[in-house]
Amino acid sequence: MKRLQDIRSPAELKQISADEIPALCSEIREFLIEHISKTGGHFASNLGAVELAVAIDRVYDPQTDRIIYDVGHQAYVHKILTGRRESFWSLRQFGGLSGFPKPSESVCDAFITGHASTSVSAALGMARARTLLGETYDVCAVIGDGSMTGGLAYEAIADAGQSGEPLVVILNDNAMSISQSVGGMAQMLSHMRTKPAYFNFKRIYRKTVGRIGPLYRGIHSIKEWIKSRALPGNIFDDMGFYYLGPINGHDEHTLEQAIQYAKELRIPVLLHVITVKGKGYEYAERWPDRYHGVSGFDPLTGIVPGEKLDFSAVAGKTLQKLAEKDTTVTAITAAMLDGTGLKSFSEQFPNRFFDVGICEGHAVTMAAGMAKQGLKPVFCVYSSFLQRSFDMLIHDVALESAHVVFAVDRAGLVGADGETHHGVFDVNYLCAVPGMKVLCPASFAELQRMLMMAVEDLEGPVAVRYPRGEEGNYQGFSLAPVVVHSQGDDLTVICYGAMINCVLEAEELLKKQGISCDVIRLTRLDVPDMDMILNSVQKTKRLLVPEEAASAGCMGNRILAACAERGVVPITAKCQNLGSGIVPQGKVDELRALYALDGAGIAYTALSMLDRL
Amino acid sequence: MKRLQDIRSPAELKQISADEIPALCSEIREFLIEHISKTGGHFASNLGAVELAVAIDRVYDPQTDRIIYDVGHQAYVHKILTGRRESFWSLRQFGGLSGFPKPSESVCDAFITGHASTSVSAALGMARARTLLGETYDVCAVIGDGSMTGGLAYEAIADAGQSGEPLVVILNDNAMSISQSVGGMAQMLSHMRTKPAYFNFKRIYRKTVGRIGPLYRGIHSIKEWIKSRALPGNIFDDMGFYYLGPINGHDEHTLEQAIQYAKELRIPVLLHVITVKGKGYEYAERWPDRYHGVSGFDPLTGIVPGEKLDFSAVAGKTLQKLAEKDTTVTAITAAMLDGTGLKSFSEQFPNRFFDVGICEGHAVTMAAGMAKQGLKPVFCVYSSFLQRSFDMLIHDVALESAHVVFAVDRAGLVGADGETHHGVFDVNYLCAVPGMKVLCPASFAELQRMLMMAVEDLEGPVAVRYPRGEEGNYQGFSLAPVVVHSQGDDLTVICYGAMINCVLEAEELLKKQGISCDVIRLTRLDVPDMDMILNSVQKTKRLLVPEEAASAGCMGNRILAACAERGVVPITAKCQNLGSGIVPQGKVDELRALYALDGAGIAYTALSMLDRL
Repeated sequence: MKRLQDIRSPAELKQISADEIPALCSEIREFLIEHISKTGGHFASNLGAVELAVAIDRVYDPQTDRIIYDVGHQAYVHKILTGRRESFWSLRQFGGLSGFPKPSESVCDAFITGHASTSVSAALGMARARTLLGETYDVCAVIGDGSMTGGLAYEAIADAGQSGEPLVVILNDNAMSISQSVGGMAQMLSHMRTKPAYFNFKRIYRKTVGRIGPLYRGIHSIKEWIKSRALPGNIFDDMGFYYLGPINGHDEHTLEQAIQYAKELRIPVLLHVITVKGKGYEYAERWPDRYHGVSGFDPLTGIVPGEKLDFSAVAGKTLQKLAEKDTTVTAITAAMLDGTGLKSFSEQFPNRFFDVGICEGHAVTMAAGMAKQGLKPVFCVYSSFLQRSFDMLIHDVALESAHVVFAVDRAGLVGADGETHHGVFDVNYLCAVPGMKVLCPASFAELQRMLMMAVEDLEGPVAVRYPRGEEGNYQGFSLAPVVVHSQGDDLTVICYGAMINCVLEAEELLKKQGISCDVIRLTRLDVPDMDMILNSVQKTKRLLVPEEAASAGCMGNRILAACAERGVVPITAKCQNLGSGIVPQGKVDELRALYALDGAGIAYTALSMLDRL
Repeated sequence: MKRLQDIRSPAELKQISADEIPALCSEIREFLIEHISKTGGHFASNLGAVELAVAIDRVYDPQTDRIIYDVGHQAYVHKILTGRRESFWSLRQFGGLSGFPKPSESVCDAFITGHASTSVSAALGMARARTLLGETYDVCAVIGDGSMTGGLAYEAIADAGQSGEPLVVILNDNAMSISQSVGGMAQMLSHMRTKPAYFNFKRIYRKTVGRIGPLYRGIHSIKEWIKSRALPGNIFDDMGFYYLGPINGHDEHTLEQAIQYAKELRIPVLLHVITVKGKGYEYAERWPDRYHGVSGFDPLTGIVPGEKLDFSAVAGKTLQKLAEKDTTVTAITAAMLDGTGLKSFSEQFPNRFFDVGICEGHAVTMAAGMAKQGLKPVFCVYSSFLQRSFDMLIHDVALESAHVVFAVDRAGLVGADGETHHGVFDVNYLCAVPGMKVLCPASFAELQRMLMMAVEDLEGPVAVRYPRGEEGNYQGFSLAPVVVHSQGDDLTVICYGAMINCVLEAEELLKKQGISCDVIRLTRLDVPDMDMILNSVQKTKRLLVPEEAASAGCMGNRILAACAERGVVPITAKCQNLGSGIVPQGKVDELRALYALDGAGIAYTALSMLDRL
């Protein structure tokens, strides 16, 4: 690990001689395998981008140039090379390195990413700022073929191509994205990959030639190392980009030259790079999906710890059962086949399974079309990604009262993925959609039955929101909109979903202090049945509503407002939630403790409300 | 008007002989001019789509086939031809015909539209439902070149092309959209328009050939009427569509043949049709922007009533002043140059003005990139369209604490555009964005100063939300976060924005009954200053919060919850708002009355709270 140890800054990376680069890349791969096998994280995509990241950080100055990694989970190598090697053990841990680019962590990270397809938009904004402010730094977006399926990337490509702004978009094409790229973009790229490498010079002679000046002469000298031939335009070319490629993404030397060349063109350039996901680690090359995001593995054998049954798997299995009974049931994913537990469904019902790519907006509107014509579509999607579809939920589903079911996975805190991935807004935005029924199971059994009810019995739009991971201690079952878990005199605690586990813990702690609670759990959030709540508050006069949700539009606010409108007034009331700020990364337990939403925290708040501290 | 009068159903339209069609189209144009000059509405785009709509309704059976008009404001001719001619006088009025497709109005309307770029997604969902359920109807999406710039359309085109589903996408290309199409798609289409019409048969020989069967033979007989020649692929072709065109969109006969042909291919077909916006009405052809959406005009002279100064114009002028002082100020629109009052800005500062097309998501992320690198971008956008950017607001602006200013136009009720366009969710979704400052002016003077404050003084993300149209009676000015308009003893009324006009009216009415109110207005919604509110509620013990907003996440809820958490408890409290349903179309005054949000309605609610009815 000699070479890697010497690199503490981008300047030191540039000092490595070209013939030492292959050895450096090997060291980086060893480092990744050693660390991610322990910390967990995004593995296969980082292995595939080693040479690319090295080349980028050697050509650009990441301290002043702005490099934006789309989705961001493939930025580990960049982090290692820009002063964060020694803190890499803390990756994705509470207070540690983020698994995504983060400007507050390093000046070398230009922009927070985490959701797909944002990089070109952000890069274009930066390029325009650079030009308007008379600065000279370079801007580069690195985007995978999966992210390129997203409409946001297309909007940005179209705008950037016409802008004429000097900027480089590196398309890191591993023909995979998270699972397999689907749709037209995948076909187009597969077509482009089969063509020999070429340079298309025709655009340079257009209006841009004037700006290029002395650089233009340089073009000819680089020409020799790659074949040049005219070719009919592809989408990037049509949109005003100068298309360059495809080139081998594991040949660092060629990458450097191509990036250098692209940078010097001073026009919008798309550099198409072909990489192998999982490159350099046999198991990951063979099963890149399995090693996309891991929580750790045995580096020697590649063995990933057996997965425990989680809410996603239960949802997937339930949908299979529903589809067996009812041929109108369809399942939709936005490139999250494995994550949402739909693998088995997709194999059993290939005709009724639709992976639309990273296109949450399209998924929702398409589902509305399906529902209007008699199907029962279920869109399985992470809470934080469904934010992309807020308008479609209102405009295409709610206005039509379309019977689309949303299986909203990763609702609540998600843990290590952190800031960009927590599902802490959906309680608010789902309940804001007119007519949306919002169900919230707390156990596997409830998820199963609520999904069945959502698909078979309810009408109009229905969301079933459930957390990431495994079941907690509560494994009971109820479909009542309001479930009373305990009865007491001193305090009413209202919760929903998996929060019941913490509340029941808190209740035990409070019992030891001689305090008894009404523990009420809501399974339906859009129209909480207020009667039982009002009765309880009238009795206890104290109301605590702990939630794994942001404060804006939280259930606590709605319940307190409803109490006030009906003249029922607690002596003391408290909405305990994640507040109005950004929730950091960390284990879910750590974060619950941070926000006083674990058993001890809830008990503590209860004691303070009862003046018993 | 003989021919048009005879058409009461799609069947009767089909009975018109081909040689009478041009006369029918003239009659339709006369009808449109006569009616829209009185009722107002979308004018130029409907004039341009007369032959297209006639051809579509002659080829398809709109009662069973599913025809989806994107954005929907060009569906007037379809409405006239499908049994709604006689009620056309009620267009866009309270209780009248919708200005957009509406399934509840006619079985011939397949899907609600209003926001851009949804049609292909919905059509694909319907096509998939058709195929899975073994039905035989046809599906057709009609989409303008402007809507085609939206990422949602791209996501859908990519998915539809690969699906192999028989469906026809008619690209109604008037090279204009609402103002001028911008970006890569516009360039690409302009390129395609210059090519001779051609048929590209190569895709038919692919895997689809098996399905076509006898239809395949028909292809050859139609071939003769249009030149056939191989051509390098365009984006649609690349995405798996069979591209057909371009053809003249004012030659109804050719249109019919082309649509018939496209329909019979039984694969995804894109039919590229060239139309002239405003066709057949000289003034509208010459100034299509001016006649895009009108509130009425003189049919003979074309004179549109002079526009009164509105909030949009004030915003535009203010931004010009800001840009004069500060060279880092930029303005962004998503294809709403005129609507957002930016025309003059775009002329004065062409380098600092960015029209990104109908791409609200990209606009927000691009603005975040600009802000990160030192510009002060202002995105001027309608409240209901910014819903498209909910995720980008959180993920790209809030997580970065980027100083992007959102000039949120059409906040609150918008009137005639109705269901799809009311800005009734933004109070909730803007306040849900971490760190977003939400300012709400009530007068032109306040808008001016708050925009200045937002751009020059505040940090991080800032939204300034203001209503459609003109100033009300209140033309005062205050920048205090909480403004006390009146002091009284019986009731506290809290409002924000233009609602102050209705509240002051209500106060006058209540005064006559001997009732005095604390009238409090908030100018800052994200963190309402509670002290003054709490003092007032403690004094009056009665709290009424009237809002032109949906109930979920309304200010009333938040204020009542905050009161409860601080132990201040009104005897009676009421959140008066637009509820949780869909708000219909109608004049703003009519809708306020409907929801008891006009002066009389608020006074009535106040009286009921005081038991004085």
